[in-house]
Amino acid sequence: MKVVVSIGGSVLVPEPGGDRVAEHAAVVEDLVADGCRVGAVVGGGGVAREYIGAARELGANEIELDQLGIDVTRLNARLLIAALGEETITAPAEDYEEAGESLRQGDVSVMGGVAPAQTTDAVGAALAEYVDADLLVYATSVPGVFSADPNEDDDATKYAELTATELVDVIAGLEMNAGASAPVDLLAAKIIERSGMRTIVLDGTDPERIARAVRYGDHDGTDVVP
Amino acid sequence: MKVVVSIGGSVLVPEPGGDRVAEHAAVVEDLVADGCRVGAVVGGGGVAREYIGAARELGANEIELDQLGIDVTRLNARLLIAALGEETITAPAEDYEEAGESLRQGDVSVMGGVAPAQTTDAVGAALAEYVDADLLVYATSVPGVFSADPNEDDDATKYAELTATELVDVIAGLEMNAGASAPVDLLAAKIIERSGMRTIVLDGTDPERIARAVRYGDHDGTDVVP
Amino acid sequence: MKVVVSIGGSVLVPEPGGDRVAEHAAVVEDLVADGCRVGAVVGGGGVAREYIGAARELGANEIELDQLGIDVTRLNARLLIAALGEETITAPAEDYEEAGESLRQGDVSVMGGVAPAQTTDAVGAALAEYVDADLLVYATSVPGVFSADPNEDDDATKYAELTATELVDVIAGLEMNAGASAPVDLLAAKIIERSGMRTIVLDGTDPERIARAVRYGDHDGTDVVP
Amino acid sequence: MKVVVSIGGSVLVPEPGGDRVAEHAAVVEDLVADGCRVGAVVGGGGVAREYIGAARELGANEIELDQLGIDVTRLNARLLIAALGEETITAPAEDYEEAGESLRQGDVSVMGGVAPAQTTDAVGAALAEYVDADLLVYATSVPGVFSADPNEDDDATKYAELTATELVDVIAGLEMNAGASAPVDLLAAKIIERSGMRTIVLDGTDPERIARAVRYGDHDGTDVVP
Amino acid sequence: MKVVVSIGGSVLVPEPGGDRVAEHAAVVEDLVADGCRVGAVVGGGGVAREYIGAARELGANEIELDQLGIDVTRLNARLLIAALGEETITAPAEDYEEAGESLRQGDVSVMGGVAPAQTTDAVGAALAEYVDADLLVYATSVPGVFSADPNEDDDATKYAELTATELVDVIAGLEMNAGASAPVDLLAAKIIERSGMRTIVLDGTDPERIARAVRYGDHDGTDVVP
Amino acid sequence: MKVVVSIGGSVLVPEPGGDRVAEHAAVVEDLVADGCRVGAVVGGGGVAREYIGAARELGANEIELDQLGIDVTRLNARLLIAALGEETITAPAEDYEEAGESLRQGDVSVMGGVAPAQTTDAVGAALAEYVDADLLVYATSVPGVFSADPNEDDDATKYAELTATELVDVIAGLEMNAGASAPVDLLAAKIIERSGMRTIVLDGTDPERIARAVRYGDHDGTDVVP
Repeated sequence: MKVVVSIGGSVLVPEPGGDRVAEHAAVVEDLVADGCRVGAVVGGGGVAREYIGAARELGANEIELDQLGIDVTRLNARLLIAALGEETITAPAEDYEEAGESLRQGDVSVMGGVAPAQTTDAVGAALAEYVDADLLVYATSVPGVFSADPNEDDDATKYAELTATELVDVIAGLEMNAGASAPVDLLAAKIIERSGMRTIVLDGTDPERIARAVRYGDHDGTDVVP
Repeated sequence: MKVVVSIGGSVLVPEPGGDRVAEHAAVVEDLVADGCRVGAVVGGGGVAREYIGAARELGANEIELDQLGIDVTRLNARLLIAALGEETITAPAEDYEEAGESLRQGDVSVMGGVAPAQTTDAVGAALAEYVDADLLVYATSVPGVFSADPNEDDDATKYAELTATELVDVIAGLEMNAGASAPVDLLAAKIIERSGMRTIVLDGTDPERIARAVRYGDHDGTDVVP
Repeated sequence: MKVVVSIGGSVLVPEPGGDRVAEHAAVVEDLVADGCRVGAVVGGGGVAREYIGAARELGANEIELDQLGIDVTRLNARLLIAALGEETITAPAEDYEEAGESLRQGDVSVMGGVAPAQTTDAVGAALAEYVDADLLVYATSVPGVFSADPNEDDDATKYAELTATELVDVIAGLEMNAGASAPVDLLAAKIIERSGMRTIVLDGTDPERIARAVRYGDHDGTDVVP
Repeated sequence: MKVVVSIGGSVLVPEPGGDRVAEHAAVVEDLVADGCRVGAVVGGGGVAREYIGAARELGANEIELDQLGIDVTRLNARLLIAALGEETITAPAEDYEEAGESLRQGDVSVMGGVAPAQTTDAVGAALAEYVDADLLVYATSVPGVFSADPNEDDDATKYAELTATELVDVIAGLEMNAGASAPVDLLAAKIIERSGMRTIVLDGTDPERIARAVRYGDHDGTDVVP
Repeated sequence: MKVVVSIGGSVLVPEPGGDRVAEHAAVVEDLVADGCRVGAVVGGGGVAREYIGAARELGANEIELDQLGIDVTRLNARLLIAALGEETITAPAEDYEEAGESLRQGDVSVMGGVAPAQTTDAVGAALAEYVDADLLVYATSVPGVFSADPNEDDDATKYAELTATELVDVIAGLEMNAGASAPVDLLAAKIIERSGMRTIVLDGTDPERIARAVRYGDHDGTDVVP
Repeated sequence: MKVVVSIGGSVLVPEPGGDRVAEHAAVVEDLVADGCRVGAVVGGGGVAREYIGAARELGANEIELDQLGIDVTRLNARLLIAALGEETITAPAEDYEEAGESLRQGDVSVMGGVAPAQTTDAVGAALAEYVDADLLVYATSVPGVFSADPNEDDDATKYAELTATELVDVIAGLEMNAGASAPVDLLAAKIIERSGMRTIVLDGTDPERIARAVRYGDHDGTDVVP
């Protein structure tokens, strides 16, 4: 089984320190021990936000901010690599071909962002499409896809299951609504739709949930079915 | 004045041969002679479609197809560079920093695609944002932004002017409608919206129209105003 | 057994589409299944000629035209890679070391051109020399080495066998004769001569002929013996 | 006049935000306006320490920690570049040749770390040697070179002036004394010694001090004279 | 067992020709046959000294000289690779990650210098630390660590064993003494100290000594114990 | 005026030391002071021969030997760059685009070899063609093009003038004659022929001859006229 796990930056490194990273690495290693081939895509989180905030103040434009953000995702990817131990790949992959090559050779692959104007959500979906993954898991800071932003709207309800086309519609609706944050972005949703791969969006603050979802399909998040 | 011109592949190379490329190069050189700093972004066109068609038949996935398409955009970029003559840059820029550096040094910059899952429409908008362009021109094969695909729907009407937010809505609507082709894609529209730069979408089959639009603001396409 | 196959661009992609590419990929896969280590070098063909023609019209010099040609050979190499399927290398090798490394690790290697002023014929011979190949096969659009250009001269006769030194002489003679096209160029012939490797020049329009020649030494082309 | 300024990470980014960066950028711009050619080398500071701490916990070795640290110095270099505005270089230099090339072309150059097992102190000295700088300034968090660590030892006295050979001896002595932190490291001191360039070590928490030291030689730190 | 062998340039190539290189390659192959994973780091030797001398005369600065020296170490690394035969890696590693990746995949790794202001002594120690080597061997032109330079001082005595901390002290002492040459430099000694790895310094003019030291711990040089 | 000077390795570095290099650099600087744009291509000479001899003994194949040779040409290029002083480019160009870019920006360009199976003779001609040079000068160890190898044959006579087509014939004849060494190789001659550029082959052991030939057309070598 081939799995791509997209781990949000604030899920992987919620605060300075390596504890959460170690837990995520343990999950990746368990999946590998089960025979999975695992590609991990890592976001920027709080450190990215701090650098981006400072650079915006200093007059940087959005593309420059994205470039800073990509650099931070690669720092976070290095942390995950450090936690994966001596016998894993030595540096983050910088594009899909490099990541795909690692997976083809039986290694874990870890990457951050790829290019400006593209989130790591979209990178996760693109990597999954590129390596023809059986499953794509988004480990985010909200426990699934909601009808509205659950932090803003008490009536927001979580979808247990969506078709990929419904996912695109829901995300498009959320993005129209300025300020609302969606757990995956529209480009990612469209890649999921066109490639028809099974996708799970779940709460990644307890990494064990990822392992359970991959192994048994058991989770409290949202299933996106082709 | 700093201008980014995004030239569709089938507008630049409608058929094998260099005639149209020479005309586009002449426009770029005229603008430079007027004192403009010009960044050109070039699409893939017919050759890209042929390679992508062949590779899809052979089982390539969408990300691999995008990679092929990017390679063809860079071939087209080399044609434009050849036509720009001896005293211009020698090779296509591969990312925004390289392109921005050329513009900063007073050179023309020519680039094709940057990364999978991102059209050259979006690259044009991102480059314009990155270099803080005064104007972004899309030279496409349709003469502006329409309410519907003019090739499919007789009632399609062309917008003479749109706000950037209206542009995003129109494009979002067109993209929902499978099969309809929009002159710029949604990601490009969103970058235009967030950066607030003036944008013109016009018929690029006569390159002189680009020169007129840049110099006098005179064109028959669609004005996107911040 | 280590084999390098040099496939002419117009043999691999005689017209837009993937059919011929699929047949060549099948031959490579069959050889691999037989236990061969296969390096493929791919030419530019018709698309290269079109781009080169357009760029020449636009004033590009020969080195720039070669650069365009190399880019097209790499596009063609990507097509062959796409046809080779998921478990093969992900991108064309750009130099001999990268190609040799793939072969060393038991992978197929696919490359196009390497540097200006050097044909893919010569790249094929150089790769074969570099990896110490047992056999070099040129799959061309003419069925072997002739005493003259068979398209120009009715008295042209095909050599069934040549020593490498005779090959150099024949090719040198053909190249003197402006307009005559040789199935391999002089640099390639000289590399074959100095390295003393067995070489077959055959008609590649039916890819099965390559497989037969490698397996049984059975072909209607020209054998070049050390 | 050619100046290399080595700015400690915690001096440049003492806390999240761009205020101090903006002040340092203003000093660089003022020096450029005075006719100086300026190369800046930027350290890692608090964010580097956090990442390194987390990675050490996760089992990374010292070389891997250095690699993380280098990545953070480049993030900080991007902040300084953002503050330097539109007409400056677009990305941090990754080695001395790239940095030297920028200075040669009349641009400011900004770099972070270069290779593991080498601090940005040493990079600053090496860059100054490489570009044959007239002056090297260390903007650190302590106000000069002391006979002992002033945070540890009340009897520590600041040197107003040292020869380069004395500097090497003082630093060697401090480094013997585990726990004591020196304002520049031994490798940097040795490069200063062998190249014979004038060097000033001063308190960089008020960036204006750098400008005053460069312009008038007026500062409260330590002068290292050849 | 993982071993890093640092071979001095004048030990590997004492004079033009491949004899000594072949002997060193044979030792590496024997160790691999014993089940060792071997990383080799190669110095510059006489050719480096000649180029550096010429460039110094021509006005190059120390950093430029280091760059020349690094290039020569990579030439020497290519010689060792040539001698290691067809089934080994194809080119010198340029940084620790590339070298570590080769070792991880079960290949021998060969590298020269990495960055200016850093000897190949230090590169050897850093590579050993990076790959968590069990043993680091310096094959030098003097038969161990001495209390003084044995070529200068008749009273110089060889240490049979030193702790890493004693090694740092001895080397620091030797470096103070201008003109005295130490078998490893101070940065290397400090890396050895901090990483706590077993290290042997021995006479590399007879390569067999390396094999014996690795296999049986039997040698006439200096043991550095953690 | 644009000039490419191809300097043989044994002409530039006949023996260890920088004297001859300094003289060649002075000629380049004089030509630049005259208003010329100068591209220099540098060969491998004696050091290349030593490394190639050692590697051949160790079993390297011709392509690996070429790679070693290229590395040595780049070392020699660094020597010439060192002699050109502080305000010139900082590193050898690795391909024609990089070299052309330097010339376009008004800098001197220095390069060595480019790819295996291609001499620096051919690189010189290709660079001259690429940058559309007015004159190509070969500074070799023989004083022009001879009817036979002057070291082997007392009846060898020097041509004062040849057409490019005659040059190709003479060189082809010399190359047939095993053991005879030609001052430029056949590929170089063919590039000269197709590009129709003026070329001078002269004795480069006195670098002043190059300056005289460029300035006044005055030399004792061979003129190749289009």
